Amino acid sequence: MEQKRTELSQLGEFGLIERIKNNFSLQNPTSLKGIGDDAAVINAGTENLLVSTDMLLEGIHFDLSYMPLQHLGYKAVAVNVSDIAAMNGKPEQIVISLGLSNRFSLEAVDALYEGIKTACKNYGVDLVGGDTTSSPTGLVISITVMGRAAKDKTVLRGGAKANDIICVTGDLGAAFLGLQVLEREKEVFKSNPKMQPDLEKYEYLVGRQLKPEARMDIVHELAEKNIVPTSMIDVSDGLASELFHLGKNSNVGIKIFEDKIPIDSQTYDTAIEFKIDPTTTALNGGEDYELLFTINPTDFEKLKNHPDIHFIGHTHDNAKQNVMISKQGTVVPLQAQGWKHF
Amino acid sequence: MEQKRTELSQLGEFGLIERIKNNFSLQNPTSLKGIGDDAAVINAGTENLLVSTDMLLEGIHFDLSYMPLQHLGYKAVAVNVSDIAAMNGKPEQIVISLGLSNRFSLEAVDALYEGIKTACKNYGVDLVGGDTTSSPTGLVISITVMGRAAKDKTVLRGGAKANDIICVTGDLGAAFLGLQVLEREKEVFKSNPKMQPDLEKYEYLVGRQLKPEARMDIVHELAEKNIVPTSMIDVSDGLASELFHLGKNSNVGIKIFEDKIPIDSQTYDTAIEFKIDPTTTALNGGEDYELLFTINPTDFEKLKNHPDIHFIGHTHDNAKQNVMISKQGTVVPLQAQGWKHF
Repeated sequence: MEQKRTELSQLGEFGLIERIKNNFSLQNPTSLKGIGDDAAVINAGTENLLVSTDMLLEGIHFDLSYMPLQHLGYKAVAVNVSDIAAMNGKPEQIVISLGLSNRFSLEAVDALYEGIKTACKNYGVDLVGGDTTSSPTGLVISITVMGRAAKDKTVLRGGAKANDIICVTGDLGAAFLGLQVLEREKEVFKSNPKMQPDLEKYEYLVGRQLKPEARMDIVHELAEKNIVPTSMIDVSDGLASELFHLGKNSNVGIKIFEDKIPIDSQTYDTAIEFKIDPTTTALNGGEDYELLFTINPTDFEKLKNHPDIHFIGHTHDNAKQNVMISKQGTVVPLQAQGWKHF
Repeated sequence: MEQKRTELSQLGEFGLIERIKNNFSLQNPTSLKGIGDDAAVINAGTENLLVSTDMLLEGIHFDLSYMPLQHLGYKAVAVNVSDIAAMNGKPEQIVISLGLSNRFSLEAVDALYEGIKTACKNYGVDLVGGDTTSSPTGLVISITVMGRAAKDKTVLRGGAKANDIICVTGDLGAAFLGLQVLEREKEVFKSNPKMQPDLEKYEYLVGRQLKPEARMDIVHELAEKNIVPTSMIDVSDGLASELFHLGKNSNVGIKIFEDKIPIDSQTYDTAIEFKIDPTTTALNGGEDYELLFTINPTDFEKLKNHPDIHFIGHTHDNAKQNVMISKQGTVVPLQAQGWKHF
């Protein structure tokens, strides 16, 4: 009898997550929110405890030929902290599991932990535990972060109402193009090792790829202004994909304006150089780790002059309609690009 | 200029953990206990939140040629739950990160999650989140477990006093020998694929290797009898190594009696067959996931008739002296076998 074999690629990441989610239910009263947001929510007395985990694998998430170990350590913490930021929470603890092959020296591990330590300091996080093991091949980094948020200030993906304003921080697409530049330079170097890479022109992009920051500054500023977003997510897979998550979880439609999407001039110029539409890098690029959130229109006054928050559109009550109004004024349906690892 | 290269094997696991621990300090008031116990302790209002993480890598921690995926899923959860048991806590949530290569089908992933689900049900744990990614080579499973314990019932490694009684649950050495049997059968199968493995004789050992249980039953029984161990650890690296952890953290010496170490008859016979001293399998075998703990002598009466708790010795005030009294009555210094992955 032949056994059935279904490829994971037929489901994709989101399909697989959905399948797991549907197969598990929550039993403990302390489990307030399970799979399906940036972090799980656990009851911790007067506050909520937020928990999120991310695994980074060499050859999939990073390439040590251009990723210095110190930056990698920093980034591994930052991307986890970003998930807590996306819940409007404050990160407090991390545990780290490392799989190391014997090609890593103690000095290499020290460099990795230097980056981890710098990130812990910057984000006010304590390293409280972990597991260290040998790996048969590449480097594996798995981090779980724990954070806190007041019960009435914990922000999920599913709280947006129709006519909320859609906001995004910073600028988008740079990290993706930084990766393209690094990959190109790696190929150039392989064919001619004497060639010195000239990355100065792409400094911002490469920095965004190698050393992203979690936008905890925004979380603190929102608290100062007494604003609780109605929904929030961090931009790890690309703006379009994250907009779909907010829309689907909140049961609202999305309308954004192409000319409002924040794109840095270096991102714009380099996209053109790579013959990619700059808007596409912002919509589908990923790894920006900016915050995408919705606010009640009554909060707009308090944020409208913020130099680093951009108002790119609004939600509406037709949950099936997710569109972008192009620079030419045409209505373009938004495409959710999944993640394509498998 | 040559860069210095120090091999990780020069430090070993415990040296590396010590180095990381010394390099990080705790800043947040909610971080009650960091690196160096079975789980970290985080303040959660009236209770403590316990957090522990374990990473399992294919080719290091498991071999899929004899480890069914369902058992692997179960074991991955159980070994994490065991760390919460070792703190005298109750597990409540887990997050799971998986690295999967395209050689895994959806059916294989389903089998893995079947085992995870069974373990979640048995231990009363909710799966609340995770990360799924592709892996360039082997299967990677990283689990973080969160549990709870009352503040006055959280048990650390460091609370034993001199003259406490050393207790261990179940029996030791079986999981290690189960692994030896499976490895031998694998070699036999490789040289003659028609040969059917006869594992019946080793059923208990193989079961201990493939499907270990966390001793939550003991945690519940101790609570019923109103006993709080003075120190506790789970036996993952072997009895000797865990005794050293308890002794060092509690600043007491260890004295155990060889004839009190619980060894199953199948373990005994198979050790002899493999020409290994049965006591050595118990002292250094690992992966038993039994609980090793110390109690105040005043609690002995309440436990003395327990069928599955064994009293193997006692602590004393010379912290430098860790010894075993052999069956012949000689004093044998205990050797701490580290973990030898690197």
